[in-house]
Amino acid sequence: MKKVITEFIGTFFLVMGAALGGGIGAALALMVMIYAGGHISGAHYNPAVSLAVWIRGKLSIGDMLGYWMSQFAGAILAAIVVANIFGVEGASNCAVPADGMIKALIAEFVGTFALAYVVLNVATAKGTAGNSFYGIAIAGTVLAMATVIGKFSGGAYNPAVAIGLIIQKTFCLSQIWIYVAGCLSGAALAAFVFRMNNPEDK
Amino acid sequence: MKKVITEFIGTFFLVMGAALGGGIGAALALMVMIYAGGHISGAHYNPAVSLAVWIRGKLSIGDMLGYWMSQFAGAILAAIVVANIFGVEGASNCAVPADGMIKALIAEFVGTFALAYVVLNVATAKGTAGNSFYGIAIAGTVLAMATVIGKFSGGAYNPAVAIGLIIQKTFCLSQIWIYVAGCLSGAALAAFVFRMNNPEDK
Amino acid sequence: MKKVITEFIGTFFLVMGAALGGGIGAALALMVMIYAGGHISGAHYNPAVSLAVWIRGKLSIGDMLGYWMSQFAGAILAAIVVANIFGVEGASNCAVPADGMIKALIAEFVGTFALAYVVLNVATAKGTAGNSFYGIAIAGTVLAMATVIGKFSGGAYNPAVAIGLIIQKTFCLSQIWIYVAGCLSGAALAAFVFRMNNPEDK
Amino acid sequence: MKKVITEFIGTFFLVMGAALGGGIGAALALMVMIYAGGHISGAHYNPAVSLAVWIRGKLSIGDMLGYWMSQFAGAILAAIVVANIFGVEGASNCAVPADGMIKALIAEFVGTFALAYVVLNVATAKGTAGNSFYGIAIAGTVLAMATVIGKFSGGAYNPAVAIGLIIQKTFCLSQIWIYVAGCLSGAALAAFVFRMNNPEDK
Repeated sequence: MKKVITEFIGTFFLVMGAALGGGIGAALALMVMIYAGGHISGAHYNPAVSLAVWIRGKLSIGDMLGYWMSQFAGAILAAIVVANIFGVEGASNCAVPADGMIKALIAEFVGTFALAYVVLNVATAKGTAGNSFYGIAIAGTVLAMATVIGKFSGGAYNPAVAIGLIIQKTFCLSQIWIYVAGCLSGAALAAFVFRMNNPEDK
Repeated sequence: MKKVITEFIGTFFLVMGAALGGGIGAALALMVMIYAGGHISGAHYNPAVSLAVWIRGKLSIGDMLGYWMSQFAGAILAAIVVANIFGVEGASNCAVPADGMIKALIAEFVGTFALAYVVLNVATAKGTAGNSFYGIAIAGTVLAMATVIGKFSGGAYNPAVAIGLIIQKTFCLSQIWIYVAGCLSGAALAAFVFRMNNPEDK
Repeated sequence: MKKVITEFIGTFFLVMGAALGGGIGAALALMVMIYAGGHISGAHYNPAVSLAVWIRGKLSIGDMLGYWMSQFAGAILAAIVVANIFGVEGASNCAVPADGMIKALIAEFVGTFALAYVVLNVATAKGTAGNSFYGIAIAGTVLAMATVIGKFSGGAYNPAVAIGLIIQKTFCLSQIWIYVAGCLSGAALAAFVFRMNNPEDK
Repeated sequence: MKKVITEFIGTFFLVMGAALGGGIGAALALMVMIYAGGHISGAHYNPAVSLAVWIRGKLSIGDMLGYWMSQFAGAILAAIVVANIFGVEGASNCAVPADGMIKALIAEFVGTFALAYVVLNVATAKGTAGNSFYGIAIAGTVLAMATVIGKFSGGAYNPAVAIGLIIQKTFCLSQIWIYVAGCLSGAALAAFVFRMNNPEDK
């Protein structure tokens, strides 16, 4: 139960950060919530990351589904608070132009691969156990990808963030497949690379 | 006594940073003063944080009152130095427009909840003992909240900062209730969430 | 093999960061890839750094050559992805003006000296073993040098980054000698200074 | 001898960073050189910091004088390289206006107090031994003070930086007393506060 609460709070602040502060707001909120919640839930705040941690073997499928529900609930509440209490909504335009779908899909795939690759190595590997840098590294990856390739897809790298931004009207529902397909496949590839590179670390 | 001196020095630089450098100045000053003073006083520099640490059970009520007095004294001295020695005063306008009171109150509540939630988890929890990231995480929360929702309330998340900015004329006295009510209630809720999520950590 | 894959992935993201995000993009990508890959390969992502680590005595010449091939392969793939998938190419102008060759050579020498000096001290020295700051320190050096003297040479401090930016047409092939000569000599000097200052650390 | 070389290299890059990259360039260069050299010399790169460490009792007076000479030599070489190789000189105007002397003196006093107070607590105190944050905390203080009160004095907080910027013509010789008097008195006060607050830590 405390894991579910932690994932809910962290994803709430991540999505509020993304909706009101863009890549920098999202990265800052993610960093601090990772440091606050890592010792309780692992601080995923991202269904794609939870998928990667499940493939890597550090999360049961039941816990993964619980995390997903908690993450989506946090994202939805954040979108409601941002839109209805703070009164900030997007322009209802889709984030990706009609001729930019492939670029967007690849950008989400590449960005989420980087994110899950970093998470698995800094937060679940034996070789980096006990470090103090995991929050900076993980949030730094979101900021790096938002800076470098964010313009091609809006820079979610996280299906829960995508859902939140759809509700808050910065993204549009018809493009949700980009974030589902791109993020989940990128995270899955990262998990397979991790298993290949760390066969003894189970 | 050395705790009182440490809280005084840290809050002095935090309020000077806020008055002369905005959210970035405040966050940088807070980070370095947390790392400098954490081993002596816990480095609260914020009456709302001291309240949360008292509710969480890591500060006596007598120490909390001593911290509060020291924090307010540091904030007042900083405001006097900024206004009278460096000659920088605000425009005497209130930070919050007349029709933005509710947003401001919620913003201070949400921001201070995040701040106290992070402080309790990174600086008082058994699960994160001995880490090197607490200053980055705590100051990063102030920067995140200032970036994301700072415009709704001026972004204090700290009654001592609010008092300092009132004396230095960036905030106005008639709106002090926003910072007292918003910050203390947000910090208290964070302390209750921490106790609920960490029942074995006393 | 897992070291080669790690160097390939890290250099890929470093060059993508440099090509699409400049000094900040490169530094962020480097930081996160250092934290993700340091426990596997040492996270060089830079032929000049691998040279310095070889001179310092912590890498065999065979491993150095394997690292070099992997780094160049990652850089080339990144350039192809940036130019052909994301459609971002430089203007085919050389980064260094005709009368700025000497400044550029010295800038790459000084910048790569700083980079290798920091790497050897924070990631290979006994006196700093087990620290959590190595990624911030190394990537911070790239950002510092890009900020301070980047304008004189384009700020590569890394022959693999230079090759990538030549393919992606931000740098030009006729100036590659600046990056080969400047970076390798700066890295070699740093390794000799390290050996002189740490005679007992082998 | 290796301590002298380390102080020389670190101060060289610090002054080059200040002359070519302002407060951000100086802070970044300082951070990376602290992490690179801290395990060898303590990484002062600042005569005022060396004075504070001497008063605090962690440096002999002979070593302090050796550090000072090395720091000034590094600063002078950096100024020569910046002015004569990279061709960047200041406008020969004094950094402080004629009616701003008192503000400048207080700003250097306050800023160097903060810097030495942070250095002594994060890099010489028993209560923070073994941490990974000292470089971020110390360089963060320089950046905080440059951001918050840098405009009043040019933001040196370091007599060696002041000498370098005088040679490179960003500061002027007639105002050197501001940096000597302000920095040394601020550092000395920080050392006395440290001794008062940490009587058992010798």
